Amino acid sequence: MSDTITITGLIATTPRHVVTAEGLPITSFRLASSQRRFDKAADKWVDASTNWYTITAFRQLAINTVPSLSKGDRIVVTGRLRVRDWQNDDRTGTTVEVEAESIGHDLFWGTASFTRTVGSPEPTVEHIDTEAAVPAL
Amino acid sequence: MSDTITITGLIATTPRHVVTAEGLPITSFRLASSQRRFDKAADKWVDASTNWYTITAFRQLAINTVPSLSKGDRIVVTGRLRVRDWQNDDRTGTTVEVEAESIGHDLFWGTASFTRTVGSPEPTVEHIDTEAAVPAL
Amino acid sequence: MSDTITITGLIATTPRHVVTAEGLPITSFRLASSQRRFDKAADKWVDASTNWYTITAFRQLAINTVPSLSKGDRIVVTGRLRVRDWQNDDRTGTTVEVEAESIGHDLFWGTASFTRTVGSPEPTVEHIDTEAAVPAL
Amino acid sequence: MSDTITITGLIATTPRHVVTAEGLPITSFRLASSQRRFDKAADKWVDASTNWYTITAFRQLAINTVPSLSKGDRIVVTGRLRVRDWQNDDRTGTTVEVEAESIGHDLFWGTASFTRTVGSPEPTVEHIDTEAAVPAL
Repeated sequence: MSDTITITGLIATTPRHVVTAEGLPITSFRLASSQRRFDKAADKWVDASTNWYTITAFRQLAINTVPSLSKGDRIVVTGRLRVRDWQNDDRTGTTVEVEAESIGHDLFWGTASFTRTVGSPEPTVEHIDTEAAVPAL
Repeated sequence: MSDTITITGLIATTPRHVVTAEGLPITSFRLASSQRRFDKAADKWVDASTNWYTITAFRQLAINTVPSLSKGDRIVVTGRLRVRDWQNDDRTGTTVEVEAESIGHDLFWGTASFTRTVGSPEPTVEHIDTEAAVPAL
Repeated sequence: MSDTITITGLIATTPRHVVTAEGLPITSFRLASSQRRFDKAADKWVDASTNWYTITAFRQLAINTVPSLSKGDRIVVTGRLRVRDWQNDDRTGTTVEVEAESIGHDLFWGTASFTRTVGSPEPTVEHIDTEAAVPAL
Repeated sequence: MSDTITITGLIATTPRHVVTAEGLPITSFRLASSQRRFDKAADKWVDASTNWYTITAFRQLAINTVPSLSKGDRIVVTGRLRVRDWQNDDRTGTTVEVEAESIGHDLFWGTASFTRTVGSPEPTVEHIDTEAAVPAL
């Protein structure tokens, strides 16, 4: 399927968590993703421009974000992009939204301690890894 | 650039962390990524097959994985795919490797507590978010 | 790098080709990408919503699109996403732009005849393919 | 979904087209995808290494590749990655396969003439493009 995107960036608003009347948990926040380009004159990578996204998570992922994510956190998100036009009284605009399939803290920027809440505590792998003989580093 | 991939999966081996003679920190481990397909007869998603990857992280990302990642953790990884042929005495094989750009715990499966170690403790956003008027959920 | 996206869709406007005063060839057009979801009641895939993008190509890719792409063509595009806010007199808006790295006709929807214009006519492959023994279908 | 990948590369073998006993059309070929890195000493991009993939297409996409694709063509492919272990008599190996969702000639390297074979000749766009006021280049 197309329109799948992976983004790294900074949580720019305090995540809002709601449960709809139908019982659907939803978390949403704004994410700032700075793009980098190599500046040959300065001989280093510099920030080029920033893309802004609205990230939305549903169900179990939404529930797990509540104790995990805060404004200012650096994260990695993968999900489906949706470009939505909206109208609010006499104003109109375009929202660039990512419906998240996975969200995690970006370990490039820090360390994280993980507590598993879903599924059996002892995860099993269905197939045998046939490549035990990976050459040593 | 092509060959960029995002994977969610289960850490299947205890991560190995080494520092090369040149001082380069490297972490590597095997990741099992189960693919899902919709079984119409059973009317639910089922595991179809499992892809095995060797995930490799360098520098700061490698350092931060040490206190963060353990065998059995569910993670999301984005990076560059490399298909390498190797030879070891009289054996040969193919390793499917992802050189990670970002790694995070997959919050679909649990909660995480994040401690920032890189950069200023108070992250700043370079541009003003022009889309304050995002319609309420 | 993040913000890379691959899209399949329909060219919705006649591509515009310009060369800037600095001699930079640019082609741009609007692309409509319909997302699909599985309708369980109807037991088939249906169009869910449509994402609109402005696709921009530069240099050699821009030049090659001129005799190749027309309004109504089905294509596949991969490139870097850019979310741009713009102002025009008293109007403002958001443009969702993809700076294309590759564009091709989507062979799901038709056939194509290709004429190579760049590089040596006899392409060479740098490495030997070590996997001659791929099992027959 | 994870394990989706987009690749640009060179068709390295003559595409094989078969129809199974069940009537399923399949096309497959080997693709060489050269990765590039920036060589600071030489101040230019150079080929770093080559990833080899087996590309497989099914159904209508497989049928349309027959008159369209030849050994030596430069293409862009998006699809689902599958890492398969195989055994052939006393030999074993690993195949890195991409089940294609879309394939197109890469217009960076040449021009293409497209003939639509699927669906109504006059494609319709379901939604009105609300962003007619895209600023001029």
